[in-house]
Amino acid sequence: MSMRIPRAVSTNDYEHQQIIKYGRALVLDIVQQYGGGHAGSAMGGMALGIALWKYALKYAPNDPNYFNRDRFVLSNGHVCLLQYVFQHFYGLKSMTMEQLKSYHSNDYFSHCPGHPEIEHDAVEVTTGPLGQGIANAVGLAIASKNLAATYNKPGYEVINNTTYCIVGDACLQEGPALEAISLAGHFGLNNLIVIYDNNQVCADGSVDIANTEDISAKFKASNWNVIEVSDASEDVATLVKALEYAKAEKQRPTLINARTVIGADSAFENHHTAHGNALGADGVRELKLKYGFSPSQKFVVPKEIYDFFKEKAPEGDKLVADWKKLVDNYVKEYPELGKEFLSRVKGDLPSNWKSFLPTQDYAGDTPTRAAAKGLVKALGKNIPSIVAGCADLSVSVDLQWPGVTYFQDPTLRTSCGLVGDYSGRYIEYGIREHAMCAIANGLAAFNKGTFIPITSTFFMFYLYAAPAIRMAGLQELKTIHIGTHDSINEGENGPTHQPVESPVLFKAMINVYYMRPVDSAEVLGLFEKAIECDKTSVLSLSRNEVLQYPGLSSAEKVKRGGYILEDVEDADIQIIGAGAEMEFGYKAAKILGRKGYKVRVLSIPCQRLFDEQSLGYRRSVLRKDGKQVPTVIVDGHVAYGWERYATASYCMNTYGKSLPPDIIYEYFGYNPNLIAKKVEAYAKACKADPLLLHDFIDLKEKPNHHKVNKL
Amino acid sequence: MSMRIPRAVSTNDYEHQQIIKYGRALVLDIVQQYGGGHAGSAMGGMALGIALWKYALKYAPNDPNYFNRDRFVLSNGHVCLLQYVFQHFYGLKSMTMEQLKSYHSNDYFSHCPGHPEIEHDAVEVTTGPLGQGIANAVGLAIASKNLAATYNKPGYEVINNTTYCIVGDACLQEGPALEAISLAGHFGLNNLIVIYDNNQVCADGSVDIANTEDISAKFKASNWNVIEVSDASEDVATLVKALEYAKAEKQRPTLINARTVIGADSAFENHHTAHGNALGADGVRELKLKYGFSPSQKFVVPKEIYDFFKEKAPEGDKLVADWKKLVDNYVKEYPELGKEFLSRVKGDLPSNWKSFLPTQDYAGDTPTRAAAKGLVKALGKNIPSIVAGCADLSVSVDLQWPGVTYFQDPTLRTSCGLVGDYSGRYIEYGIREHAMCAIANGLAAFNKGTFIPITSTFFMFYLYAAPAIRMAGLQELKTIHIGTHDSINEGENGPTHQPVESPVLFKAMINVYYMRPVDSAEVLGLFEKAIECDKTSVLSLSRNEVLQYPGLSSAEKVKRGGYILEDVEDADIQIIGAGAEMEFGYKAAKILGRKGYKVRVLSIPCQRLFDEQSLGYRRSVLRKDGKQVPTVIVDGHVAYGWERYATASYCMNTYGKSLPPDIIYEYFGYNPNLIAKKVEAYAKACKADPLLLHDFIDLKEKPNHHKVNKL
Repeated sequence: MSMRIPRAVSTNDYEHQQIIKYGRALVLDIVQQYGGGHAGSAMGGMALGIALWKYALKYAPNDPNYFNRDRFVLSNGHVCLLQYVFQHFYGLKSMTMEQLKSYHSNDYFSHCPGHPEIEHDAVEVTTGPLGQGIANAVGLAIASKNLAATYNKPGYEVINNTTYCIVGDACLQEGPALEAISLAGHFGLNNLIVIYDNNQVCADGSVDIANTEDISAKFKASNWNVIEVSDASEDVATLVKALEYAKAEKQRPTLINARTVIGADSAFENHHTAHGNALGADGVRELKLKYGFSPSQKFVVPKEIYDFFKEKAPEGDKLVADWKKLVDNYVKEYPELGKEFLSRVKGDLPSNWKSFLPTQDYAGDTPTRAAAKGLVKALGKNIPSIVAGCADLSVSVDLQWPGVTYFQDPTLRTSCGLVGDYSGRYIEYGIREHAMCAIANGLAAFNKGTFIPITSTFFMFYLYAAPAIRMAGLQELKTIHIGTHDSINEGENGPTHQPVESPVLFKAMINVYYMRPVDSAEVLGLFEKAIECDKTSVLSLSRNEVLQYPGLSSAEKVKRGGYILEDVEDADIQIIGAGAEMEFGYKAAKILGRKGYKVRVLSIPCQRLFDEQSLGYRRSVLRKDGKQVPTVIVDGHVAYGWERYATASYCMNTYGKSLPPDIIYEYFGYNPNLIAKKVEAYAKACKADPLLLHDFIDLKEKPNHHKVNKL
Repeated sequence: MSMRIPRAVSTNDYEHQQIIKYGRALVLDIVQQYGGGHAGSAMGGMALGIALWKYALKYAPNDPNYFNRDRFVLSNGHVCLLQYVFQHFYGLKSMTMEQLKSYHSNDYFSHCPGHPEIEHDAVEVTTGPLGQGIANAVGLAIASKNLAATYNKPGYEVINNTTYCIVGDACLQEGPALEAISLAGHFGLNNLIVIYDNNQVCADGSVDIANTEDISAKFKASNWNVIEVSDASEDVATLVKALEYAKAEKQRPTLINARTVIGADSAFENHHTAHGNALGADGVRELKLKYGFSPSQKFVVPKEIYDFFKEKAPEGDKLVADWKKLVDNYVKEYPELGKEFLSRVKGDLPSNWKSFLPTQDYAGDTPTRAAAKGLVKALGKNIPSIVAGCADLSVSVDLQWPGVTYFQDPTLRTSCGLVGDYSGRYIEYGIREHAMCAIANGLAAFNKGTFIPITSTFFMFYLYAAPAIRMAGLQELKTIHIGTHDSINEGENGPTHQPVESPVLFKAMINVYYMRPVDSAEVLGLFEKAIECDKTSVLSLSRNEVLQYPGLSSAEKVKRGGYILEDVEDADIQIIGAGAEMEFGYKAAKILGRKGYKVRVLSIPCQRLFDEQSLGYRRSVLRKDGKQVPTVIVDGHVAYGWERYATASYCMNTYGKSLPPDIIYEYFGYNPNLIAKKVEAYAKACKADPLLLHDFIDLKEKPNHHKVNKL
């Protein structure tokens, strides 16, 4: 059974109703200015705003980044005016009335973008693509659970914050949210309170045109505490009560299913046009008359509203001061742990972090995934900010370091005996790639540098998580994604599991480093770069053993994204080898060398890093002899995007096939002799017709009999 | 309450147990050959296989494509051996014992890939990426519901098939599956039966390491009929009973929560190593001894098993013959409807389909989304195979034609008054982009050409659906995706909603046509191509009005993917304009023209189509004068991938920003004068240093003050 709270009566009811009314009028005025924006849910959510920013949330208006603050995430980000209006009410310095009015304006410096953005004060994460925010909130809640379990001591709750999240109907239909909800229930994250702004109206009409399920029952089935509030657009006192009950819950995350009214009290109340439209001058006037306000007065915030929130700033100052004092004493009592905690708060890497890196062994033909896992294990064990995890392929990817604790509800006893607790730094995300990466964003956003989330799965499955990785790029969140089995060499599972085109997306994503090392030395250099930089990295790693290039490949040079692997003077031909397929390019180069050609071999495992180098450097790699020579990229992915560096390709031009790894390369023509033959013919053709250097010819033939005929 | 069926006793129990045992031994033998594969769930699912292929499914072994067959989807595709073994048992011609043995072999012509693939007989859809199959199954169920509601007449049930789908624990964690489950319940698809192979074991251990929710309760909350079967690895009779109950359900889809045992009876029974490993020779021996089989005999299928299924072929032949007779009579009784039905069965487009296309109006500056919606409405109204839909942005995208019926449960009464029935050809998918596109795949796979699914949403949100669109490409399913608001001109919603890099993914996807027309004429030509071709198309369309190019742009020429929009002899400079940003490139070309430069303007709205043309044609567009001239791409997306056609770029190099559409272009430097200035300087620099033609210089500066400073 869900808890249904009877209507509570508060002595503040009159004040609440005034704030609700002025808040709605204010939202309408703002949206009316430029004839657009999302007014309806902000109007319907005013009571919720009071409950949160007056009564529930722990925050410091003068120090929005106060470490132990409660985190608030607006998963239905288009309702941002709700957040902005209350930021203004409670006195966030950057949210002046002028700022509020800049919503939807031409102001380049506006703090009021159409969705909340992390660049702005008191915004924890950028939301907008529906379903992301609630998954981020799960990450934020995991972050504080983990810090609390790691650092709190009796009498020293240095971290005890709660994560609040508002979701709309839409978020509860989106897959990543559904994945994250399921996992949050599993973990029993009682420090997570999700408020469902249940207005039953979507963009196209009433929600029941596409969704008629029992949301409360679904959450209960996923181990959530569910509280229902029936009049949540008006009834602040009951919402406050519900939030108190939620806060008191010991075992489970809480959903407050709050029945709200979109566009409450306006002409578009309960109607889908309230979702994303201005109401028109007459509509605004009508609402103001209904409330007894003067229609000619706009953007009115009576002093009483500011007064209502005026204690929040000094309260917040005290919170911050008390917390600092607590931490000071904590550091005295627990010097070692305290030092580590302070370093986590600052978001520092241990200054000696590189000393934990294992010495690489270049002797054997190690799969690049094996080289990477060695690094993750070594650093994971020694750097407390690292939280690794996997989407149910831990057995294959294998990032768990010796002695690792799993992040789990400590009361959980699993059938297979795997146990853990909230201090654990390895997360079994389940088969939920999208939520995994969105949760990683929440971990990274808790406080920059406090956590370095490392996720992992087969490379192909990151396509499920691409929208979350994009959000990491957009927010410049440091997350690291370890994608193994990154090519047709994945083998028997077949084309569904073999990435041939999806790497292109990550290469094109701004602020994201897609890295595909050719051997263990490059893995080392690129992984160091991933740890050092403040961006998102996606490592693309081989299932199979790869050739090593001792004396040629370089952990240092690779940090520039690309370099000459093996040089010759005055080259006739250049070959760029990619990842596991460098072997074919390299061997083809040797064959051509024996035939008398001067072949230079290039490695460009991270195009974005390479593009960030000076033109001079890039030319010293790509056109060292001051001219463009025939340059062929040999890659087990599509050629798309290699045109910037190569003049022709020997790359995948079909999807893959279910064949064993040792045979699949042969099937698709990855054979050094064949490649050498094709490259030689191409180089000759370029001599006869130099324009070919611009045509970007595809040198690889498609396999015969690629398809079986159906009856 | 779920229904719990008491154990049923069948007279066939002994035979069932024999088939189960021989089936398990056979699976182990197959997997043992090459030391790998997924044996465990296939072993645990043998009873299910008998229940399905002996008792439940309506199919014709000699005519696997029999139109009114029940569809079977193995959503946990790695369990494919279950399907292959029963295909062999029931006598599918292409599934010989030799074929069965080709699983994981080097055989290029194997019918037994590591996951079921649509190319092979009796496989409805390619599955593998978890969560896709069940969403495809929802599409298949919608397809038959729709056909039945459209064509069946009293006494003439020309279509009445059921869709069966097996899912594993993993599918029920993946977002796209959760979205599709919710929608299937909403639609009340009682012709859909999902069997949950509930073995409680995942790759990393027991499922409860990452999921402890009550699956049955979740389904019930989403309006599913739930039946629980407790001993589903052994108890065929109860499974048959459960399937009968499911078949009799009138209102809801059914979940059969079937508790199975992974690796049943083997040494890795109930253990996660059963998931994807061979058991080893000793293990195989042990199981055979337990069953009283000779360990030295491999791949044993006693004659009794073939006998057990031997009536399936003649039964199937009769099904086909009866159906043909029924349809013959139907066509006589209902000649017009019958003709249309036959045409749907064949998968034909109406021969006069082009006559339904509206005459384009090139006068006004129409947004390309408006041009496209006109085409969808015109064809949708007149071509019965078109099923359009949207992920809750119908108000913006607006593809509903006059008089359209919505696909809905006819008993549903929505709060907003929207009603429909199962004959409806417009689907409100809810805010479920991923499921939308995976369901579209199911519709398209029902029978090639019987349905042309058209989905729609804002372009950015297709990134959520990318894995499903990839599956369409992989299977060569004709689906059409209409993505509007396709650039920074999306405006106020900000960078989360503004695609700058995601188009690159769709351009790189094999068998997928990404199309970004510059004006209404190109919309017409490309949309025709999307209807004509047998591939997946993604249309990328502008929110804002775009310039029209009458006499220059061409609905015919555009079908080759790219062409010269405005020609000059002996060009000094070429400009390629993309989509809505052609305007800036075109105007910059005019400015340069007035300065005395000879500027050629190119349009390449579909790179893949263009790349499919001959080298001669491509050169006639890109290098008409027999040489490479400075060629600048002007695009509101990233430059990535344009290097094949251009030598420099004026493209997005940051994420977008929340600004109104009219101002955002200016903010990011999309200004013809500025572009002309940059292009001119670039062309001059190329004269001085021709190597620059290979460097692919980024000519666009990043905006100043792109970021607001946080406190």
